[in-house]
Amino acid sequence: MRPSGRQLNEMRPASIEIDVTKHAEGSCMIKMGDTHVLCTASLESRVPPFIKGSGLGWVTAEYGMLPRSTSSRMRREAAAGKQGGRTVEIQRLIGRSLRAGVDRVALGERQITVDCDVIQADGGTRCASITGGWVALRLAVNKLIKAGDIVTDPLISPVAAVSCGIYAGQPVLDLDYPEDSEAGVDGNFIMLGNKQQIEVQMSAEGSTFSRAQMNELLDLAEKGVDELVALQLAATA
Amino acid sequence: MRPSGRQLNEMRPASIEIDVTKHAEGSCMIKMGDTHVLCTASLESRVPPFIKGSGLGWVTAEYGMLPRSTSSRMRREAAAGKQGGRTVEIQRLIGRSLRAGVDRVALGERQITVDCDVIQADGGTRCASITGGWVALRLAVNKLIKAGDIVTDPLISPVAAVSCGIYAGQPVLDLDYPEDSEAGVDGNFIMLGNKQQIEVQMSAEGSTFSRAQMNELLDLAEKGVDELVALQLAATA
Amino acid sequence: MRPSGRQLNEMRPASIEIDVTKHAEGSCMIKMGDTHVLCTASLESRVPPFIKGSGLGWVTAEYGMLPRSTSSRMRREAAAGKQGGRTVEIQRLIGRSLRAGVDRVALGERQITVDCDVIQADGGTRCASITGGWVALRLAVNKLIKAGDIVTDPLISPVAAVSCGIYAGQPVLDLDYPEDSEAGVDGNFIMLGNKQQIEVQMSAEGSTFSRAQMNELLDLAEKGVDELVALQLAATA
Amino acid sequence: MRPSGRQLNEMRPASIEIDVTKHAEGSCMIKMGDTHVLCTASLESRVPPFIKGSGLGWVTAEYGMLPRSTSSRMRREAAAGKQGGRTVEIQRLIGRSLRAGVDRVALGERQITVDCDVIQADGGTRCASITGGWVALRLAVNKLIKAGDIVTDPLISPVAAVSCGIYAGQPVLDLDYPEDSEAGVDGNFIMLGNKQQIEVQMSAEGSTFSRAQMNELLDLAEKGVDELVALQLAATA
Amino acid sequence: MRPSGRQLNEMRPASIEIDVTKHAEGSCMIKMGDTHVLCTASLESRVPPFIKGSGLGWVTAEYGMLPRSTSSRMRREAAAGKQGGRTVEIQRLIGRSLRAGVDRVALGERQITVDCDVIQADGGTRCASITGGWVALRLAVNKLIKAGDIVTDPLISPVAAVSCGIYAGQPVLDLDYPEDSEAGVDGNFIMLGNKQQIEVQMSAEGSTFSRAQMNELLDLAEKGVDELVALQLAATA
Amino acid sequence: MRPSGRQLNEMRPASIEIDVTKHAEGSCMIKMGDTHVLCTASLESRVPPFIKGSGLGWVTAEYGMLPRSTSSRMRREAAAGKQGGRTVEIQRLIGRSLRAGVDRVALGERQITVDCDVIQADGGTRCASITGGWVALRLAVNKLIKAGDIVTDPLISPVAAVSCGIYAGQPVLDLDYPEDSEAGVDGNFIMLGNKQQIEVQMSAEGSTFSRAQMNELLDLAEKGVDELVALQLAATA
Repeated sequence: MRPSGRQLNEMRPASIEIDVTKHAEGSCMIKMGDTHVLCTASLESRVPPFIKGSGLGWVTAEYGMLPRSTSSRMRREAAAGKQGGRTVEIQRLIGRSLRAGVDRVALGERQITVDCDVIQADGGTRCASITGGWVALRLAVNKLIKAGDIVTDPLISPVAAVSCGIYAGQPVLDLDYPEDSEAGVDGNFIMLGNKQQIEVQMSAEGSTFSRAQMNELLDLAEKGVDELVALQLAATA
Repeated sequence: MRPSGRQLNEMRPASIEIDVTKHAEGSCMIKMGDTHVLCTASLESRVPPFIKGSGLGWVTAEYGMLPRSTSSRMRREAAAGKQGGRTVEIQRLIGRSLRAGVDRVALGERQITVDCDVIQADGGTRCASITGGWVALRLAVNKLIKAGDIVTDPLISPVAAVSCGIYAGQPVLDLDYPEDSEAGVDGNFIMLGNKQQIEVQMSAEGSTFSRAQMNELLDLAEKGVDELVALQLAATA
Repeated sequence: MRPSGRQLNEMRPASIEIDVTKHAEGSCMIKMGDTHVLCTASLESRVPPFIKGSGLGWVTAEYGMLPRSTSSRMRREAAAGKQGGRTVEIQRLIGRSLRAGVDRVALGERQITVDCDVIQADGGTRCASITGGWVALRLAVNKLIKAGDIVTDPLISPVAAVSCGIYAGQPVLDLDYPEDSEAGVDGNFIMLGNKQQIEVQMSAEGSTFSRAQMNELLDLAEKGVDELVALQLAATA
Repeated sequence: MRPSGRQLNEMRPASIEIDVTKHAEGSCMIKMGDTHVLCTASLESRVPPFIKGSGLGWVTAEYGMLPRSTSSRMRREAAAGKQGGRTVEIQRLIGRSLRAGVDRVALGERQITVDCDVIQADGGTRCASITGGWVALRLAVNKLIKAGDIVTDPLISPVAAVSCGIYAGQPVLDLDYPEDSEAGVDGNFIMLGNKQQIEVQMSAEGSTFSRAQMNELLDLAEKGVDELVALQLAATA
Repeated sequence: MRPSGRQLNEMRPASIEIDVTKHAEGSCMIKMGDTHVLCTASLESRVPPFIKGSGLGWVTAEYGMLPRSTSSRMRREAAAGKQGGRTVEIQRLIGRSLRAGVDRVALGERQITVDCDVIQADGGTRCASITGGWVALRLAVNKLIKAGDIVTDPLISPVAAVSCGIYAGQPVLDLDYPEDSEAGVDGNFIMLGNKQQIEVQMSAEGSTFSRAQMNELLDLAEKGVDELVALQLAATA
Repeated sequence: MRPSGRQLNEMRPASIEIDVTKHAEGSCMIKMGDTHVLCTASLESRVPPFIKGSGLGWVTAEYGMLPRSTSSRMRREAAAGKQGGRTVEIQRLIGRSLRAGVDRVALGERQITVDCDVIQADGGTRCASITGGWVALRLAVNKLIKAGDIVTDPLISPVAAVSCGIYAGQPVLDLDYPEDSEAGVDGNFIMLGNKQQIEVQMSAEGSTFSRAQMNELLDLAEKGVDELVALQLAATA
């Protein structure tokens, strides 16, 4: 029934390749089916003004799509002169989600910026960005620990994200673009490794939803997060 | 226990005054405690390019805060030269939420723009904007119906929104600013009058949350929405 | 002869309600007929670079119109990405006018920003902004005096403004929108309480004007300013 | 008493050289003492949307200062990414003033854009721009008449402008920069050749002013305009 | 003598992988040593206004660097709100260079946009973009030919580019970043397959150069272009 | 054969008038035929961050065209809200070229900004800007030397620039606009007084070029630079 022939609770084939760029302190290419996102974590010397002198660290994120990551070419945001509303919304979500897994005291007064650049899009880019972004962050933090710059590991738990939705009346896990564009309800679920929730965003797109449906989607999401966390841990082992 | 002395499941005193500006097709001032939002609905002659010739209508929203609606003066966004990420995120949410209650075929090929301008802020401005925005929309649509421009009522159901969160370890309804700034978990719940959900946004801010807590917040939200819908219907009766 | 039925030298019904918002140091809602402007005065911790260390104070102003304050909806300036020429012109005028009534030595090295936001427009918004802006400023300064932060009152005199013009060949006082849009000559007159002039701006719009006409408009303006100053003093008594 | 040694009612040496650039339909370099402004009038094929099909013409203006036209280098507005408030205010004034001398029916449905670029500034650039701008406009219109594109002369009268102010307690004509920066009151007077007034802008800068003073400045301004109109007519004879 | 141990006339290891993204009509990843650029060619439905109705085609290019493609993180241009001068300069060069190899009549009235996004930078990104951009263009045009949309091949010749410079007093081929940042003279050479020149850009950076040196660099560049063209043809065979 | 009747190797009549504006530390009006550029050199108190404390000086440039310097009116860049790609490219070239003739140690930690504003354009504005810009720079540096602020002359050599191209199949010197718009190959050559090269930019525009043609253009350029340097030295003697 799903365009891809997947089971309702079946994720797309997923992979995470680490150390894909030589400059970044941490980097990976995450592939969720045909959605490919390059994630880098950059240790930055400057910290935002509001943490200066606080001893606390900061993790932030930026998100972009290459102009032809999509089916028809999108206008380049740098040429348009500003980041669109969707971009801003997504990068705020990525940063907020990753911070929920960080002990900012243990991180110490430094900033790590996670860049998530979509090389190829096929639905679920924000979730892939969070999942891959955590891997890049993990690798960058590992370097700080190895160098003795950080003593206590500031990463409390993996952070992973998956989308679920109601497609053709059925709850399905990990929507691809053909499903996403037709789904009546669309949700993004971001969790820690222990399935404590960081952020839940559910949106009616065409049909509203009941609490029962919400709980079905959460069940699917927990299954997806389990698989993603296993993948993250394998990639950074 | 709450700074305001309210019960855990007690809303702030709420009121909706309609027809507060002479130019708009629909308008109201919604007050949720010390949060005051002026909502106007404007019938616009132009329609967005993507609905031209489709026969479908469109409802969109814009959101702003007066510079001194807040405790310390904020920079005016028009002077800053762009709308901030938070503003864009909120106005996209308002528009999406209101559209979930609209039969776009019945509306016909016209656009209604709902402006929500925060006169005074004390937490929950986005929820107040949605609840008040629906009232302004209702009034504008009533004029179209009265004038015979629309035959079938395109408003399927009221749309109302309320925030709930976990404050000092307890689930509370309708957070005010002192609570919002301290809450460990913060959620916005947007529903139709029959409590079908349009959008659920829950965010960990300091502490993550379990499914049990999520359900407690949903219980509170349903109670709040019931009260808000009664207020909306009374105001537009 | 006037669309409103007023006498040539008759002002619109005017009122000033103070303390309309809980956050601002001073605030009022001024209504000149159907023109309603919310004015707030904000004491700001930062001072502009050019007065740093000078011991002198600064008063500045910003002006905005809500998108549906006008007969047809205007584009929101924050969305357009910049303040229009008219906005910039008006807010510079408001700031300049208010400063003419301020002893900047007595004010001391602090900045007060007066925000004038038009809730509903029916002509004469810049004049209402100046008149109401002064009231907000007066209230904010009163607080500073009461708190002992200022010893000598820095407000030399009330500052009030009124528009006059030649409508249907006749000099009239306090133009409303129907008159303003048809007037052959349009003037804004800003004065101290003693009728010393701060700024005179007269513009031919369709017909030029003679010195005799100019003096007739000044006579009307002086009458209007007398009434406005009385209103200001009553509101802040 | 004046820094330049001029009489109170004495203008600076003024000259207008026409046809200074080969591309523009009309052009001149106006020099008011050390203030030098290059004015060009460009006949444009496009007309603004609001006159399309109306048969009416339009005259508009733009104003700029070369970065080193001033005593210390100013930031280039093109590099800053926007025109400052002062620039916008001035170019709106120039356009409005020139239009007051134009019969828009006789001009026919075409646009003439007058560019006023300050090569060297020493006070009074906006007035020089208006006076020189009219000359450029006159020359461009002459070409249209000569070519038979216009039958009735659309220029009703010359338009000229001069600044006057109260300097060291005395009313003086045609302020240069040293006077302008010290003046207690500063005014710009724009008139037709017959001394009918188009725009009067008087501003207190440090000291307010009485109606008597206003009339003294107007007397000076009329003398100045007489001299400027003679210069305009000689240059375009 | 070269930091990489290469001979003076030795290129970096180069490779071109085609069809690296599923959406674009043509795509490749070009690697010149550690410089990796993703190039896509997008067939666009819209054509620029200046070719409408002309029957001529257009090829244009855009260039970007991922924020962490460089040794220290660069600010994202979309976030900065504009493309920097260097970016604009480079993308204009890429577009101009590619067009020199295109028969715009044979292409027909359509636009192809070549996007060159630097994934990892180590010197010579603009040259790699041109060389890789041509491959993407070739692949996109092949599709048009195969589909019968184009009859005559509009690609006259491959277009390839290489940088040469004077490093430590010696002319060297294909500068990497350590060389580029120290080079006294830096040149970019863009040629057709037959070594006819499209663009030569040579710049003194620290030391000026003689005609003899210029000719030495050209000799190197011709060798480099020969190798690159062979690579392009192999990749698209 | 040339539209102007000039010999293939004949420059346009050229002149440089110095001290044309009273405010700038150095200024000139350079005329290359009908191309007129006003160049000013401004000594600036601020230095760019990257030279702070280095003891080194900096020379930078900005370029602009008056809206009606061209045959049809161009949009003013300040009104458009940004400098176009061509402007940015040209001003970067001017700055880079002038710096190649400067001993930055001898200049000392100060910045000189050279503004090149095109009053009238007829081809070759960037070359005229460099040649005239050097004269303005020379005059400003002379003042610093005369005032004893600089001991060793930091200007190593004159810097001059000329364009050459292939027009109607023939190599020609100093293209004017009619030639420039038709040329198959267009080059800009910037050299020191001893003909050492600073920058060579050659571009195919319609036809590519061989090394033999490149050398012919270089021969012409050297002749042109000799004449321009003589003019520069005469003007600043």
